[in-house]
Formats: sequence, structure tokens, C-alpha cells
Amino acid sequence: MTTTPKSEKDRVFIFDTTLRDGEQCPGATMTFEEKLEIAEMLDDMGVDIIEAGFPISSEGDFEAVHEIAKRSKKAVIAGLGRVNPKDIDRCAEAVKPAGDRARVHMVIATSPLHMRVKLNMTPEQVIDASVAGVTRARNMVSNVEWSAEDATRSDIDFLCRITEAVIKAGATTVNLPDTVGYTTPEEYTRMFRTIRERVPNSDQAIFSVHCHNDLGMAVANTLAGLDGGARQIECTINGIGERAGNAALEEVVMAINVRNDKFPYWNNIDPTTLTRASKVVSAATSFPVQYNKAIVGRNAFAHESGIHQDGVLKDASTYEIMTPASVGLKHSSIVLGKHSGRHAFVHRLEELGYKLGKNQIEDAFIRMKALADRKKDIYDEDIEALVDQEIIQAHDRIKLSSLTVIAGTHGPQRATMKLNIEGVNKIEEAEGNGPVDAVFNCIKALVPHEATLELYQVHAVTEGTDAQAEVSVRLAHDGRSMTSRAADPDTLVASAKAYLGALNKIVMKRERDKPAPVAAAS
Amino acid sequence: MTTTPKSEKDRVFIFDTTLRDGEQCPGATMTFEEKLEIAEMLDDMGVDIIEAGFPISSEGDFEAVHEIAKRSKKAVIAGLGRVNPKDIDRCAEAVKPAGDRARVHMVIATSPLHMRVKLNMTPEQVIDASVAGVTRARNMVSNVEWSAEDATRSDIDFLCRITEAVIKAGATTVNLPDTVGYTTPEEYTRMFRTIRERVPNSDQAIFSVHCHNDLGMAVANTLAGLDGGARQIECTINGIGERAGNAALEEVVMAINVRNDKFPYWNNIDPTTLTRASKVVSAATSFPVQYNKAIVGRNAFAHESGIHQDGVLKDASTYEIMTPASVGLKHSSIVLGKHSGRHAFVHRLEELGYKLGKNQIEDAFIRMKALADRKKDIYDEDIEALVDQEIIQAHDRIKLSSLTVIAGTHGPQRATMKLNIEGVNKIEEAEGNGPVDAVFNCIKALVPHEATLELYQVHAVTEGTDAQAEVSVRLAHDGRSMTSRAADPDTLVASAKAYLGALNKIVMKRERDKPAPVAAAS
Repeated sequence: MTTTPKSEKDRVFIFDTTLRDGEQCPGATMTFEEKLEIAEMLDDMGVDIIEAGFPISSEGDFEAVHEIAKRSKKAVIAGLGRVNPKDIDRCAEAVKPAGDRARVHMVIATSPLHMRVKLNMTPEQVIDASVAGVTRARNMVSNVEWSAEDATRSDIDFLCRITEAVIKAGATTVNLPDTVGYTTPEEYTRMFRTIRERVPNSDQAIFSVHCHNDLGMAVANTLAGLDGGARQIECTINGIGERAGNAALEEVVMAINVRNDKFPYWNNIDPTTLTRASKVVSAATSFPVQYNKAIVGRNAFAHESGIHQDGVLKDASTYEIMTPASVGLKHSSIVLGKHSGRHAFVHRLEELGYKLGKNQIEDAFIRMKALADRKKDIYDEDIEALVDQEIIQAHDRIKLSSLTVIAGTHGPQRATMKLNIEGVNKIEEAEGNGPVDAVFNCIKALVPHEATLELYQVHAVTEGTDAQAEVSVRLAHDGRSMTSRAADPDTLVASAKAYLGALNKIVMKRERDKPAPVAAAS
Repeated sequence: MTTTPKSEKDRVFIFDTTLRDGEQCPGATMTFEEKLEIAEMLDDMGVDIIEAGFPISSEGDFEAVHEIAKRSKKAVIAGLGRVNPKDIDRCAEAVKPAGDRARVHMVIATSPLHMRVKLNMTPEQVIDASVAGVTRARNMVSNVEWSAEDATRSDIDFLCRITEAVIKAGATTVNLPDTVGYTTPEEYTRMFRTIRERVPNSDQAIFSVHCHNDLGMAVANTLAGLDGGARQIECTINGIGERAGNAALEEVVMAINVRNDKFPYWNNIDPTTLTRASKVVSAATSFPVQYNKAIVGRNAFAHESGIHQDGVLKDASTYEIMTPASVGLKHSSIVLGKHSGRHAFVHRLEELGYKLGKNQIEDAFIRMKALADRKKDIYDEDIEALVDQEIIQAHDRIKLSSLTVIAGTHGPQRATMKLNIEGVNKIEEAEGNGPVDAVFNCIKALVPHEATLELYQVHAVTEGTDAQAEVSVRLAHDGRSMTSRAADPDTLVASAKAYLGALNKIVMKRERDKPAPVAAAS
């Protein structure tokens, strides 16, 4: 939608921090595999810089950043650290495989409150530590970002001084975040404008915005920062992140596209990838997307009231300022069912963004037909549930052979389960407090393990009770979390499969670390 | 948090449209009883104007607005209509019981696109119809609001002309909505400023903002409107509403409170009611609140990363710009369990905002103890689920006596159910596609009815599988929807209870219309 010729001064770099700020918020922990999948997706979407994690924080974070740096194709890969040598060295090591696309990003607080209470450092010490950190990082990589944590509550004179110092030391990007979601658009514009005007070497670095949504203004503040001269936007898919989250990538990108008259900037994001990206991140984190979420919520392009329907039927632009297709939302025009052929099915898979091998397509097709026998209409969500399950199950060591559950008001609920554990069938019975608890107790009896259940969620995939139920299970083991989703018309079967899916991930991880057979109860 | 003396010119009126714009978005339909409950809550919160519905749109909407107007204590009660006489008369009739707190709100589109494509009217015709509408309404009520639909895409000269005309005709409030979520803060400020400067009689009306969140800027635009001189904010709890929703009441109110230095306005909302209001609206609509929703999301005051935890432990203001208590969020300090007494239970109920009669407390206490026997910890959410169910079940005609379900991979699933239908026990067996389907088929066999299932949702109320499951069911009958929620450690029992809850509401409604016994299958 950018109609003016693209000049470099209007280019905005999109820095996605879904895997760092997004992942560190309570409950959003992702597995190694999920991080790789999301990083690949972000790279394909046209994200300029992917912040892949906080390498010093854990072995797992280091491994993820390192592997993402290795696999990345176009994007710059950044890791975050504090300004101290240990953090910087570990970070530089993690991003190294990205070669000249490796970035070290370091952060230190600059507000009086944070320096005094949290860091117990004087402003001079903060400047010295920053300069030392940037200098050290620049000896290892050429691409160094420095962030002034809590910049919007910092003293402007101090911000000018420290900005000049870190740029002189070699920082190529200076990020001035609204860490606590406190600023207003006018204030944020003015801060960038003042610093860029007053810092003599400000033309030697790119300035960056990073906004939180605590007062609902993350997107407006982000755009206001651009008005002040910033040219990098830090954001996340679905706006996940600390507390009320970060500016949502999809909202920022579409605001720039739709209101390019007011925000005359351009970036490399392919907006038709936004809908799918939202679903992938929602699935990996098990964070639901609010129905009325802008751009990607299920109601964002839905109309119920008579007046709106009337308008939209006459001319969609009466109530839609962008087309659903522009953000990758396909309206279900073909309804799949038991009379549908392979061709329509493959076409729909492609529309949904799946590229599957022949065997995978065949398996998914057979499962779709089996589902169609039990269910009137097959919706896009059903297909996604089918296929995602297919991909996940490819390497399962533990498989569900059969399950019978007796539930109801008489309690305790009972489950009888047969599992195929590396080719051997085992059967067990267990009671529980509710049918789901009984099912999980059965699994624990069959496959003793230390993992604890962190999350259990049921989603009705589509409308109606004959719909597939989709269940998310997250297990915590050895300080890591593994999430799995499974779909089945029977909620209890879906619950068992989701639990086993997460358990299989743990088993695979355990085997990578130290090859040993799965412990099975006799 | 307003520290300056309160002057009338800085007063901002809060106009809540959760029951109108919120309710008309796809899937958010509420029952008559839910609307009354929410209206009472809004009145208690300090909302100045409650838009209770669109009286001409249905008999149900009329009845709800009428009943809310009758019961309201402090708030002005508004109904919406188009500018034609039929809409206005019906609306005036609906709000009449509110006496001098009755407002007629009328809307007509003013953008070239809407006038041409949707209305098929010339600008002159739109002015004439508006003036006629306002004049007619002013003959019935003294409080009349006129809205220029799609104002932000309208011609500014035309907006000035029509605004002057409707104020002259007697409009006391002029609303200039950003109907399609298209405007930017700077643009919205300028629009209000220009109109207030150029329209000679602009001082005789209050100007109002109404923003949608399609580009993520509803809150910033709302505040920008105030900067342009608007003094009424139209908003909704949780930001529900058409498409990407409206500006969220809780975000706008807290932005004004936290940044009162930048937004020096005041209003009557008690901010400690915000957390509970969010939960009530989420429950009534079955719309989940995103975890990272500002102010009311479950992560809004949660911290996981080491750096943030460290800061918050030293001084919460390092990462929190408002206290959880300021928005009514109580941290669970007392954990209830089977050793807890009545006193702690009643204390917690009061903290959660429940005022129950003695018998209701006793019933809820017994149920809490029964739950505690089956579940380690009792969380606030468990208590809310218990009590809400208690209140709803007070008048049930059909009660669940017992249920047994056999589910699993062998299919088809089977349920056996005994219902007490107005004192008579009936038993039936049914099969289904999945255990939930079998349960619902049982109910259909026992109580034949025409209602169709519109929504089925399972929420894990608290963490862990020994938690209560909470199920929402929405049934559609005679053009109306009835939603019910129920909680039980057994998902299937909760499903049965939720379905029966909705069915009971339909039965009660049918009896109000035409007293007749419930049809029961022999």
C-alpha cells in the first residue's frame, strides 16, 4: 500500500521480540522446537531483526538463540544481555553463527528510580559500564544495540549524555524504550526529537522504539516515536510481552499501511502473513487471542448488526478500512465435507499456508474423511487441528491405543487406558477427581515420570458439540516447559493425546541429552 | 489520583456502551438478566451515562432498556436509534422510566461514502433528517445526543454545518465517532478543535468521542479527543464492540488517573471496581480476556523474568505504574481449604464483591467444603464459580439428579442421565459423537425442545486437573440467546449443568410469556 517511491530515510526496521520479551512473560514459555518454528516464520515474514532470547539466562535460551542464528536466512539475529562482560560474551557466542547478521543487544536502566533502587549505581557508573559493554561487544560483532531501560522516566540531559557516549563507543542502534508503558504519544515524539537534535553524533545510529501497553497506548506511542525520528520498531506478534505486553507487530504494520498518508514509512513485512503468524504464536504459547483483538481477532472482520451488515454488503469499505485478504484472512468459500476430493483438500491446505509432503497429505486426507463421517462441516480450524497433530505425532514413542472413561455424578471417575510404548502394549486403570484427572493418572501409572502439569486448556475448535475439541497441555520438567495440543471429537481422548504429546517431547529431549529407553511400569 | 481541585470544565463524562456497541458484536449477545446485572454494576461503578440498547431493533432490546431505565439509580440511561420518527419514538418510550435521567441518542452517517452508498441521501437530506429527529426527540426528553457516524471520514465543512444545525435544534451532546477505527491522535484532536472553534453555538453542547480499535489506537485517540475539547468518552468494559472493539473503559480511566499531569481531567468512576467489572462482562459474553490485556488481563500485574522480579521486590514502582489495589485486584493472601471456617469464607466473599443473604452464604459454604474435600486449594476463581452457580440455580425447574458417561476411543460415547423435572425423576440413555454430545442428546431425549446450541466453551477455572472446570453453553430459542455457566470438577457434569441452566432460562422465559408446564418425554 506504500504508494510513494521508497527512500532509505523512510525505511522502518521491524525488530520482533516475540521470542524474548514475549516469551519471558508469565505462562508464555515455548519449547526449543516452537522457538525454531517461530523464528523461521518471522524470517519468512520479512522481519528485519529477530530477538531470539536472553542467552545468559539459561542453557536453553543460549541453545535456542544459537540454533536460530545458525538457521536464519535473511534476518539479523539478536540476543539480549546486560552490559556486563559475562552477559555480552555469552550473547556474542550465541549469535555468532549468523555471521554478519549477528547483533548483540545490551540493556541497562537509566531512570533515577531504577539506577538507585535496582542497580545501586550512580549515573556516571551507568555511563562507564555502558561504554565498556558497547566497546567489548564491538570487538566481537559489528552490529551492537544499546537500550536505556525505563528511558521514558529518565532525565533528558542524562539520556543525551549517555546516548552520545554509547554511539561514540560504537553502538549502531540506540533503543529508548517505554519499559513500563507510561508515556504518551506527544511526550515520546518530543523525547526522540530532543535527543536527536541535541546529541552531536546522533546521525551515526538508528534510534529505536519499544513500547508497552499498560495504558493501552503502545501502538500510538510507537508511531509517535517514528515521528520523532526513530526508525526501528520493537514489537511482538499478538502484542505478547511483560505485563500488558508490547506493541503488536500486526497493528503497527497495518497502521502504517492503512494510514500511509500520516505515517509515510515502509518496511519489509508481508502483511498477508499476519493472520497465520498470530495463530502460530497463540498455539505455541497457549495464549488465547481476544475476539476483538485488532487485525487478527476472530471478530476483527466480522459484522453482526443489521446496519453494519447492510453497509458491508453494499460496499465493504463502509466498515472495513482494510480488506481481510490484505492481512491473509481467507473467508471460507469452499466448505469441505465427506464428498470433497483430494484436490479441494490440498488447495485448502495451501491456502492455509501448509506445505506438506505427499505422505503427510495422504494421512491428513484420510483423517479428514474420517472426521467428515462424524461431523457435518469441516472448517479451516478443523483442518489446522488435524494437520498440526499429524506433524507433531510423526516421532511419537508413546501412542494411545485405546481409552475408556466412566464419568458422571457418582464419582470417583475411572479411566482404563492402553498405551503402545515403543511397540509394547500396556494397560492400566486409574481413578481421579474428574474424568481428565483419571485419564492423566492412568498415564502416570503407565509411564512414571517427574513432570508436573502446568496448564490444561480446552478449546472448542469450531461451533457446535459435534466439533473437534482441542486441548492444550503444558508439562514442566527439569526447569523447562513442553506444550502440546491435540484434537478429537471426544474431549477426553484429545486430553490424553495432548498429555502424551507433551510427554513425548520430554522423552525426546531426555533422549537427546542421554539416550535411554522410556521407563514403563510393569 | 486527581490532585488538582475539581473544576467543571475538566470533568469528563463516562458513557458506557457495553450493552449496545459491545453487545451487538458477533457472539456477545447477553440475556435480559445479564443486561440488568451489568447495568446495575455500571451504575454502582460511577458510569455517568449507560447506553442500554437499541430499542427499535428487537422486543428484547426494548424490554431491557425499559427495565434498566426503571431500575437505574444515578446514571443517565440512553437508548440508540436512527434519526427517523419510529426509532426515536420507540427509544423515548424505552428510556422514559429514567425520568430526567432519560437520554435519546440518535445516529446518522455523515461521510460521503456512507451517505451515498448506505443511506442514498444527499448531505442536505441528512441535515434535514437530523434536525427533524433532534426536534422530535427534544419534545419528549430534555437530554438528546446526536452522532455523526463515520465522522472521521467526513468533510469538515459539512460536519461544522450539521453540528451547528443539530445544536440549534436542541442536541445537548454531539458525538463525533471514529466509527471505523481510522483516525490518528493528532487528526482527532484537530477535528474537535476545528469544529469547536468554527461552530458558533458549540458551547451549548458537550462534545463526545467514540473510538474503535481497528489500528490499535482507540485509547490514544480517545485521549486526543479530550485535548481537542471533547468531554464525554464513549467506551466499553474490556473494549468489546464492533470488529476490533471500542476504547476500553478501564484503560481510558486509568490512563487519565496515572497520567493526570498530561490528561488533567476527572470523572466519577471508582477504579477499584474495574477488575471485577471485567470478569462480570467476560462471563456474561463468554469472551475471554487476553492474558496481556492492559489493566485487567491476568498478566497485567504479573512478573516472571528475574530482572523484573528483582526490581519489583525492591520497589514495585520500578515496573508498576499503578498498584494492583488501585484497580481492585486483590492478591490471594488467604488460601481457603477444608480447614477454613465460615469467617474467612465470608471475608473472602466480601473481598470479591459478593453481598449474599444468609441462606446463600450457607449453601455456598457447604459447597465450598465439599469441593475442598476433592481439591487441595480453593482459589478466588473457584469461589466465584461456586457462588455464581448458586445464584443462577435458585429458580431451576429442571435439575440434574445423576449422570454416568462412558467415553473413550471405542465410540460411540454413551450417557445415562436422571433429571428431576419439576419434582418428577426421569431417566434416559443416549449416544453421541463424543461424551458432550451424548450428554446433550440425553437432555434432548428427556426434555424435548426446539432450542439450538450456539456456543459451547470449556474454561479451566484454576490451574491443574483437579481444578473445577467451568463450561459455558448458549442456546438460541425464538430469536433470543440464553447463556449459562456451570462449574464442577467433572467437565461432563459441568456441561450438563450449564446446558440445563440455559434451558431453565428458556423455560422461565416461556412461562413468563405463556404459563404452561414443561414438556417432558415419557
